[in-house]
Amino acid sequence: MAEGYRVAILGATGAVGTELMALLEERQFPLTELRLLASPRSAGKTLPFKGQSLTVQPLGDRAFDDIDIVLASAGASVSREWAAKATAAGAVVIDNSSAFRMDPKTPLVVPEVNPQAAAHHQGVIANPNCTTILMAVALWPLHQIQPIQRIVVATYQSASGAGAQAMEEMKQQAQAILDGTEPKTEAFPYPLAFNLFPHNSPLNDNGYCQEEMKMVNETRKIFGEADLRVTATCIRVPVLRAHSEAVNLEFAAPFSPDQARAALVAAPGVKLLEDWEANYFPMPQDASGQDDVLVGRIRSDLSHPNGLELWLCGDQIRKGAALNAVQIAELLVQKQWVKPMATLA
Amino acid sequence: MAEGYRVAILGATGAVGTELMALLEERQFPLTELRLLASPRSAGKTLPFKGQSLTVQPLGDRAFDDIDIVLASAGASVSREWAAKATAAGAVVIDNSSAFRMDPKTPLVVPEVNPQAAAHHQGVIANPNCTTILMAVALWPLHQIQPIQRIVVATYQSASGAGAQAMEEMKQQAQAILDGTEPKTEAFPYPLAFNLFPHNSPLNDNGYCQEEMKMVNETRKIFGEADLRVTATCIRVPVLRAHSEAVNLEFAAPFSPDQARAALVAAPGVKLLEDWEANYFPMPQDASGQDDVLVGRIRSDLSHPNGLELWLCGDQIRKGAALNAVQIAELLVQKQWVKPMATLA
Repeated sequence: MAEGYRVAILGATGAVGTELMALLEERQFPLTELRLLASPRSAGKTLPFKGQSLTVQPLGDRAFDDIDIVLASAGASVSREWAAKATAAGAVVIDNSSAFRMDPKTPLVVPEVNPQAAAHHQGVIANPNCTTILMAVALWPLHQIQPIQRIVVATYQSASGAGAQAMEEMKQQAQAILDGTEPKTEAFPYPLAFNLFPHNSPLNDNGYCQEEMKMVNETRKIFGEADLRVTATCIRVPVLRAHSEAVNLEFAAPFSPDQARAALVAAPGVKLLEDWEANYFPMPQDASGQDDVLVGRIRSDLSHPNGLELWLCGDQIRKGAALNAVQIAELLVQKQWVKPMATLA
Repeated sequence: MAEGYRVAILGATGAVGTELMALLEERQFPLTELRLLASPRSAGKTLPFKGQSLTVQPLGDRAFDDIDIVLASAGASVSREWAAKATAAGAVVIDNSSAFRMDPKTPLVVPEVNPQAAAHHQGVIANPNCTTILMAVALWPLHQIQPIQRIVVATYQSASGAGAQAMEEMKQQAQAILDGTEPKTEAFPYPLAFNLFPHNSPLNDNGYCQEEMKMVNETRKIFGEADLRVTATCIRVPVLRAHSEAVNLEFAAPFSPDQARAALVAAPGVKLLEDWEANYFPMPQDASGQDDVLVGRIRSDLSHPNGLELWLCGDQIRKGAALNAVQIAELLVQKQWVKPMATLA
């Protein structure tokens, strides 16, 4: 038989699920089987993969039989319910939800930053929050040269972060407003087209929303810096796809823009994009569909002797979700941190 | 004759000019004459005011004869050319452009912050940059109680900041993208609809764009704090009207969210808008057309013992431009810092 792994995608019909399929095909992931799983409501649909047509199967007790790797992207409650069943069946789960990210037993992995964390997995590896992944990839190369002591970040998060339905809703809202009619809201609490609002995830008692606390806590866990000082303001903006972030950094000592540029040019997963003559810097429309996080507008901070300002854009669905998950799967394969192919005979 | 002042609007046909007319009418500014001035290209147009129809006159050598107050909003080059002629003719110029803002002889005034600065004018009073005004109004009440030592701000600036033509262009771009055709760009260097980009004002050698340097330098001048530490990242977003700002503050000592709220509730020009139960905070669509700067999401900064995070939205055309200018005119009248009405007989 062909050499490869048996992979299941949980939540195959969502925006991230679709991207997972595209990436497995594009990156020629060594597959012997791809099983598409979704809620009973979506079961029976067919999706194209490598010129074939795959039928989506309903989640059920035997769904994970003979599966090596599960790429889960169906929300935290589904992951909480099904992850243990998948690992009990012998699979490794790479989970895109927030369910296990802060669980001390679960590695939280960005392959460019902390690949070694995945070595000690106990069946589940968590894929971080999208805004956190994008920031971590861009800041880690700097942190290796001069320790970052404080991060103040403001985000510009696109509709895609809320899923395919939210993207469609924003387009319909825009058309309604252009037509002079009332925009409808369902996926979002307020109209997003031509408007913006603080991220509507539930609020903690400290006034931070959950999305902001993910940036604080997950960055600390990924960097292995429990005391890293991080604050975030997360804002949803009327952009279709790709998130942007204005990042203010304080280092332990002065760190020049040119030092930062040199570190970023040499780093994986990052692309320096600065044309100072043309006043051209990363934009969501350039980051959409790209694997790399685009970084630019690197400046010494006028307000702090050890400060640096930078601006980044990244595709929330790719590097912010599906690509990072597939990279984790590739890492498991490469390091043989999943059942080796030999056992598949 | 009726008691009042003779006012000219320079740049009457622009977005701010239109708003200036609306505000003079709405606020019952004591007028005996309103003269509308614009480029020869716009001269001859008629605009409604108090039920009448006023004809726009071309800028020329006699344009400021018998005028007490000029509200100028036609760009820096026009102000540089015409302000001296207006003051030589005896008028006080309230200038909305950047031409004189950092001139040491020219007061830079936000009436809620530094009204006394206007007392010593030498014919020209500068109206600050829009994002700077909105931030100054919200931060000054806090600074009075506990000195602010550092400001890290990221902006979300609407199309309206680039004028009426830019707002129209963004709507046309949105329609083009919804129709699957190529969006056209003229007022902006890149498509703004469903996209965003760093503010495209010219870049300084230090990497900051001019819009960002305005926030740094003008805030210092308005606050009378030459050494205030300020850094800014200015981003243009696909919102039609009203700017938003994510503001991170460091105070000289701990300053609680409740202290900040108490200061803001008592302050002029600011409205506290926080519904933590409903996850409802200031949005551009709520700020549009409003006089007050909306402030909310006040939180203690997890990353700094003396830090505070807040979020604000304000109408760039009203408080960010036209309203502030009219308030300066009202201040001049109230304090008799302009030729008193008695001389008009």
